[in-house]
Amino acid sequence: MSRFWSPLVHTLTPYVPGEQPRLANLVKLNTNESPYGPSPRALEAMRDAADDSLRLYPDPQAHDLRTALGLRVGLPADCVFVGNGSDEVLAHAFQAFFAHDNQPLLFADVTYSFYPVYCGLYNLPYRVVPLDGGMRVVVQDYAGPCSGVVLANPNAPTGIALGLDEIRRLLALQPDRVVLVDEAYVDFGAESAARLVAEYPNLLVVQTLSKSRALAGLRVGFAFGQPDLIEALTRVKDSFNSYPLDRLALVGATAAVEDEAWLEQSVRRVMHSRAELTQGLESQGFEVLPSAANFVYMRHPDRDAADLAARLRERAIIVRHLKGERTAEWLRVTVGTDAQCQTLLAVLRDILHRNT
Amino acid sequence: MSRFWSPLVHTLTPYVPGEQPRLANLVKLNTNESPYGPSPRALEAMRDAADDSLRLYPDPQAHDLRTALGLRVGLPADCVFVGNGSDEVLAHAFQAFFAHDNQPLLFADVTYSFYPVYCGLYNLPYRVVPLDGGMRVVVQDYAGPCSGVVLANPNAPTGIALGLDEIRRLLALQPDRVVLVDEAYVDFGAESAARLVAEYPNLLVVQTLSKSRALAGLRVGFAFGQPDLIEALTRVKDSFNSYPLDRLALVGATAAVEDEAWLEQSVRRVMHSRAELTQGLESQGFEVLPSAANFVYMRHPDRDAADLAARLRERAIIVRHLKGERTAEWLRVTVGTDAQCQTLLAVLRDILHRNT
Repeated sequence: MSRFWSPLVHTLTPYVPGEQPRLANLVKLNTNESPYGPSPRALEAMRDAADDSLRLYPDPQAHDLRTALGLRVGLPADCVFVGNGSDEVLAHAFQAFFAHDNQPLLFADVTYSFYPVYCGLYNLPYRVVPLDGGMRVVVQDYAGPCSGVVLANPNAPTGIALGLDEIRRLLALQPDRVVLVDEAYVDFGAESAARLVAEYPNLLVVQTLSKSRALAGLRVGFAFGQPDLIEALTRVKDSFNSYPLDRLALVGATAAVEDEAWLEQSVRRVMHSRAELTQGLESQGFEVLPSAANFVYMRHPDRDAADLAARLRERAIIVRHLKGERTAEWLRVTVGTDAQCQTLLAVLRDILHRNT
Repeated sequence: MSRFWSPLVHTLTPYVPGEQPRLANLVKLNTNESPYGPSPRALEAMRDAADDSLRLYPDPQAHDLRTALGLRVGLPADCVFVGNGSDEVLAHAFQAFFAHDNQPLLFADVTYSFYPVYCGLYNLPYRVVPLDGGMRVVVQDYAGPCSGVVLANPNAPTGIALGLDEIRRLLALQPDRVVLVDEAYVDFGAESAARLVAEYPNLLVVQTLSKSRALAGLRVGFAFGQPDLIEALTRVKDSFNSYPLDRLALVGATAAVEDEAWLEQSVRRVMHSRAELTQGLESQGFEVLPSAANFVYMRHPDRDAADLAARLRERAIIVRHLKGERTAEWLRVTVGTDAQCQTLLAVLRDILHRNT
């Protein structure tokens, strides 16, 4: 307790990000980073921009980046918002859209654990909607009075994706509320709702360069929505920080977005590795949920997940174990390089054999 | 009006940053950027870091940067907070410290115009305290019940600085409230209150790399305070965005902070140019306030400031004119290179001669 703090600060339960260990030689499969580097064109653009022009403020409207992002999905720049990572974009969206007469925001009981944290920060009531027994989102459960809906698609940590028909159903269920579809992992095999933006004034699609574009270290996220929604985000952003993206991030992100060939190749490799990893895990007795993301969610019928994570860590492999009633049995494992996947499978085989 | 917006969004009056024109060949003296480039060591560090490691998230605790910043002022890393520009640091501080039983936050009537915007974003009442007739802060006017005090020192747009004796007086006036001293321009001739942090649990000092370090384009700000205050900022930050600083900004900022020699040389040049510019303006009849910043605040007894700004713009020189009862007569002019200052003086001389 501190007499200096605003009362709210005492009530916050901050998000705890996955560990960023300072040790080398770890097989780091805990925060869903890409095993491959970002587009070489993006790296080159940033190296070229690291010059005296950094003395000048960046473009506060991020015009070039927003234009490039819009072009990819057939939307004009005024349907595009950018921020300092999709976490910042989400934070602004929670504040901009989800305060309505104390009605609850709806999101799944097992999903990105930052959502309830934002609700704490902006004093927003929420209600969690349980996934079904197969860890799937059941769209019709999101009916009724609410301040809005947030849906991670594919969901994290499950990796399971809904099709666009289901997204349409959700949008139709809540025509007077914003439905935020958080597509951090969409490029790894799900269908983006970005193409529905022109049809649905209540749709906000949030994406990131951190996963499929391999730029977690650059902090660039973005949103697609009709101009009315983008204006609300812009009003909040311009009341918080005029220049959320620095000059290097702006040019690097623009080059990364334009390098479609690199994206496709990188995503294809990850999806191929995911299929092989899933097969390998299943052959060891793991249950693996069908993943449309760059990670798999798995459990073993005979093994304690926390114990497995600890044993992997002893062998220099880090995966993510989330506490909580419905997640305690599961491990979330990032799809690494093929070599990393092979190492993981070999070590798991060893652990399982030793202890049976 | 939009049915999707949270009611707050309708009430926001966003900050309007100084123009970032896309035209070349302008003499840009409107946003207080440094006329010189950043530390070459910072640029080199960023070019070196633009590699495949960008696939990984940055250090969410920014350990190395906070340590480097603390070393400069003799404080440990747990007395240092960093953010995506000092605007983000200020935003978090407003939310973390200035909500107390609907009491008003106090700041000057003529100061950084983002302060009332933050109050709007977090629904904080505020009361502006008039500068005196000489555009100076009068410390004793900041007594009485309040939620906190924000003081820009040197003040912007006036450029006038208070000494540490006055800051001590202010801190003693409000021992139970945070006194935030916003030192964006402190390196250009004022005394930093950072050295008072160990003595005053209610002091938060905010600085930036945008001005004296010539890294406006990189978006790095920071704060010094006792661990109790830093913890509040960290709780808010970790409820908003785990990784506000990207990997390039972290290494670039650390290298910039360590390059003391570059800072000293750059600041000395600006201060020298400021003295010459002030003399030149005064010899043309301008009243120029005594500046401890990298800009001067001036007015002419016979000339309309908005008209002067417009005429300068026609001649490809941009300065900042702020509307408002007490600022309408004044122009804020960034101290540029000596050549830019000479150009400004020559064009002003021409404008004044033509129209008398």
